[in-house]
Amino acid sequence: MRIFLAQINPTIGDLPGNTEKILHGVAMAKQQKADLVLFPELCLCGYPPDDFLLLPHFIEALHGPLERIKAASSGIAVIIGTPRRGDDGLYNSAAIFANETLVGFQDKSLLPTYDVFTERRYFTPAQSRKVWNLCGHKIAITICEDIWEHSSLLKGVAYSCDPVRELSAQKPDLMLNLSASPFSVGKVQMRNAVCAKAAQTLQCPLLLCNQVGGNDGLIFDGYSVYVDANGDLLQCAKGFEEDYLLTDLSKPAAPYFFQEDNTESLYRALTLGLRDYFHKSGFSLACLGLSGGVDSALVACIAAEALGRDNILGVNMPSRYSSAGSLTDSERLARTLGIKYRKIPIEAPFQSYLDLLTPQFEGRSPDATEENLQARIRGMILMAISNKLGYIVLSAGNKSELAMGYATLYGDMCGGLGVISDVSKRQVYALARWINRNEEIIPWNTIHKPPSAELRPNQKDSDTLPDYDIIDNVLQSYVEEHCSPEEIARIYQYPLELVMNLIRRIHLNEYKRRQSPPGLRVTEKAFSVGRRFPIVQRWEV
Amino acid sequence: MRIFLAQINPTIGDLPGNTEKILHGVAMAKQQKADLVLFPELCLCGYPPDDFLLLPHFIEALHGPLERIKAASSGIAVIIGTPRRGDDGLYNSAAIFANETLVGFQDKSLLPTYDVFTERRYFTPAQSRKVWNLCGHKIAITICEDIWEHSSLLKGVAYSCDPVRELSAQKPDLMLNLSASPFSVGKVQMRNAVCAKAAQTLQCPLLLCNQVGGNDGLIFDGYSVYVDANGDLLQCAKGFEEDYLLTDLSKPAAPYFFQEDNTESLYRALTLGLRDYFHKSGFSLACLGLSGGVDSALVACIAAEALGRDNILGVNMPSRYSSAGSLTDSERLARTLGIKYRKIPIEAPFQSYLDLLTPQFEGRSPDATEENLQARIRGMILMAISNKLGYIVLSAGNKSELAMGYATLYGDMCGGLGVISDVSKRQVYALARWINRNEEIIPWNTIHKPPSAELRPNQKDSDTLPDYDIIDNVLQSYVEEHCSPEEIARIYQYPLELVMNLIRRIHLNEYKRRQSPPGLRVTEKAFSVGRRFPIVQRWEV
Repeated sequence: MRIFLAQINPTIGDLPGNTEKILHGVAMAKQQKADLVLFPELCLCGYPPDDFLLLPHFIEALHGPLERIKAASSGIAVIIGTPRRGDDGLYNSAAIFANETLVGFQDKSLLPTYDVFTERRYFTPAQSRKVWNLCGHKIAITICEDIWEHSSLLKGVAYSCDPVRELSAQKPDLMLNLSASPFSVGKVQMRNAVCAKAAQTLQCPLLLCNQVGGNDGLIFDGYSVYVDANGDLLQCAKGFEEDYLLTDLSKPAAPYFFQEDNTESLYRALTLGLRDYFHKSGFSLACLGLSGGVDSALVACIAAEALGRDNILGVNMPSRYSSAGSLTDSERLARTLGIKYRKIPIEAPFQSYLDLLTPQFEGRSPDATEENLQARIRGMILMAISNKLGYIVLSAGNKSELAMGYATLYGDMCGGLGVISDVSKRQVYALARWINRNEEIIPWNTIHKPPSAELRPNQKDSDTLPDYDIIDNVLQSYVEEHCSPEEIARIYQYPLELVMNLIRRIHLNEYKRRQSPPGLRVTEKAFSVGRRFPIVQRWEV
Repeated sequence: MRIFLAQINPTIGDLPGNTEKILHGVAMAKQQKADLVLFPELCLCGYPPDDFLLLPHFIEALHGPLERIKAASSGIAVIIGTPRRGDDGLYNSAAIFANETLVGFQDKSLLPTYDVFTERRYFTPAQSRKVWNLCGHKIAITICEDIWEHSSLLKGVAYSCDPVRELSAQKPDLMLNLSASPFSVGKVQMRNAVCAKAAQTLQCPLLLCNQVGGNDGLIFDGYSVYVDANGDLLQCAKGFEEDYLLTDLSKPAAPYFFQEDNTESLYRALTLGLRDYFHKSGFSLACLGLSGGVDSALVACIAAEALGRDNILGVNMPSRYSSAGSLTDSERLARTLGIKYRKIPIEAPFQSYLDLLTPQFEGRSPDATEENLQARIRGMILMAISNKLGYIVLSAGNKSELAMGYATLYGDMCGGLGVISDVSKRQVYALARWINRNEEIIPWNTIHKPPSAELRPNQKDSDTLPDYDIIDNVLQSYVEEHCSPEEIARIYQYPLELVMNLIRRIHLNEYKRRQSPPGLRVTEKAFSVGRRFPIVQRWEV
């Protein structure tokens, strides 16, 4: 049996566009003489469709495309993911077509409702799981999460049903899985382990077709797989791009050794996320402030890779407190990268605000107000460039800064997309070094100098923040792993009071993050998506 | 039997503070010689606790307070809402104490996961529903949503279980309900109908204790009730404030006629929401831009009512395009309200930006860029006042403007709270007239003049927007009721193309709203909470 995995990149709600991608996949599969073509979860509307699922006319609009896909299934079995209105609710479903007829729907059983997932908000779980007779085979069809419960790799989630275990009793000779499984660092290895475990239990091959592409903050990595009955990985589609994988179950194959560099994957994920955020909304131009620091340098590199260097404008906006290095490092980066570059000093508007506000603030000494003014003037200049010239502003705040609130709301937090808002300062440095692995693209001086916001004379991040290493450890343990302050203090041998202060600071700055640009999610717990904490609260850490 | 309903206002995560409120309620109940005291849903941690529920050490921290409450239950039955860790998950539960012992837990059966509710994200549904023998009565205990399925008033939600129907078979002689049921216009009447329906089916009295107070964007109105076996409302606690209601089931009572003015309720809800947003986070000072328009005038009135006029600073920030009326109307409002007032003209920084940016924008004509610059300068001035003087900025954008994107991101959208972001322009006028019902507080000129942003010569909102009546009709039908464009065009006899353009505009401006301040929810579907649409999408309306 020949199976074709069509790892496509759908756009949310783009029914005509997604239908074309599906029909194109079917045509390619036929050309390859495949017996069956498999697509990702909810690929007809794109994943996640969010509240579009609540619009009755949106669900009705799926009918026409489904008819077109059915008509294209002559001589081949086609399995696509789509929402389906049943008698007692909406289902996240796999539509199975063959020879121009609808064979049936297999609905999803396990509906993730944690972290970034909200499927119980929309869907009813499958009533039953059956094995389908297709192309002379007994095929079990599952959707994404359906195979995860069996792996014991889900933390803090307990389903009352294990579809893999249940289906294994029906002795399928093949399992297919339609997925929309979002990327985070290390996720691919985990997903492959989930597939291996299911295949071993079922004692049959498993093929998983995963969505690829960025949709708002979520990045889907692709890496669709073919795993044999031993759980050995035999074939793997490309990561971070559309790909098509032809498998032939009757032909022997050697195990495929999946290898991944976490830093490279992170870079490719961010690049894909940024590109799709722009291209899927019809934009191609990005601008950002270049401060001479490592965060904006990294974002400039990712943006140039994603959109093309000609489409990127870096703007250096020196103030009276800017170091000479901030200017030379910015210029050098822009030259090396080949992006457009402008220098717009902010002294005149800054002085104008000071003149205006000094009488209002009589008797008060300078403080964060004046620092924020500078950051906000820069934000305003970038937004004016955006309004007048059509560039979308990129925000370069990293996860460590956002955790601490070490950022100015409406200042450096301005932008259409927070490119590295889920990347810790530690990872920022790792990415910068990785970018420089062959040659100096980001000036080494940018990487080596101590981080500074340069908003007052001789300012350093370390004036008001502990070491980024400490912040990043607490961040990971508390935000991603939900450890208690006591546990964190014990693990890292930090003073408890230090840990508690950092955690308090994380909660206190919820109000800033709530107004941050949407950010690309690359860890198991991002601030901007999949994490919900109240702004107003009095939990005593 | 004497039952005491303690309609308290908990703060999220404030375990010591909430425990004190509960112990105080128990003491009052004893003083009133009550047999039983009932508290709201999850009142120990406050509703909604969001991802605090995912922290194991948060759940553990509930233990101490529960022990204290148990110890206080000598001679009385105490029922409070709390999360409870069970063997197979976390439960939204009612802890039942009597005579210093734990009688048991009744878990919640129906876990709302729609609109603003995310309970399936955290909780497992109850395994069983039983009738409890307490104080010589057979008492059914339910939590909020548990009694809603029976009413058929839930739209678009279908549960497989109806606890009221199931419990009626066990013939209780009383039903108690712990609620945290958020306000929206008209909600109280609906909740009372739900109670009446349940009581009629059960053929026994029903007492519901509802949370009161604002928690982030959600406002809980209180209005706890005592309904007899006929479904007649006999007693009702106050709305929008803490209240305690003593009921005596053995004494006959006349039906209570619940009456509500929707505009007054809306005003009281907004006032409570604003006050709690500030006070629960330890702030008392608010500033806002006064433009002479009706939106900022309304917000100033609500803020003065909520925080006290001495705590409010209105700032008029005229530009070269401001009308004379904008200044005189602002001054007059500030004087009538008795709030602090400053005038800070923005011409100098505006000119300074123009000078700086003109060479950058050579050959381009003036457009929205220059309008946004003015709005952003005003935002920056307010934020500087906030930073230096400790005022929290209030944003005065209404729901109709936010729907259309008729607002400047980082400009008039700056602020800690969007006070009227869920109030349509139509409701804004209704509220302004209601405020002026006895005397002119908001200058009538502010109410009568055509709306204008005054960002270019002789600008009117109607230059770029259709009538607010049209916008508000489409807004309600599409956003709140999920009607299709065709249905809306038919209902209101609008051209289909007009409706489609407005809906497209609603979706296109998702990116702005995503960065808006948190807003107070007062309708069945607010933009900022309980509505999730992707920014990047290509749904062809």
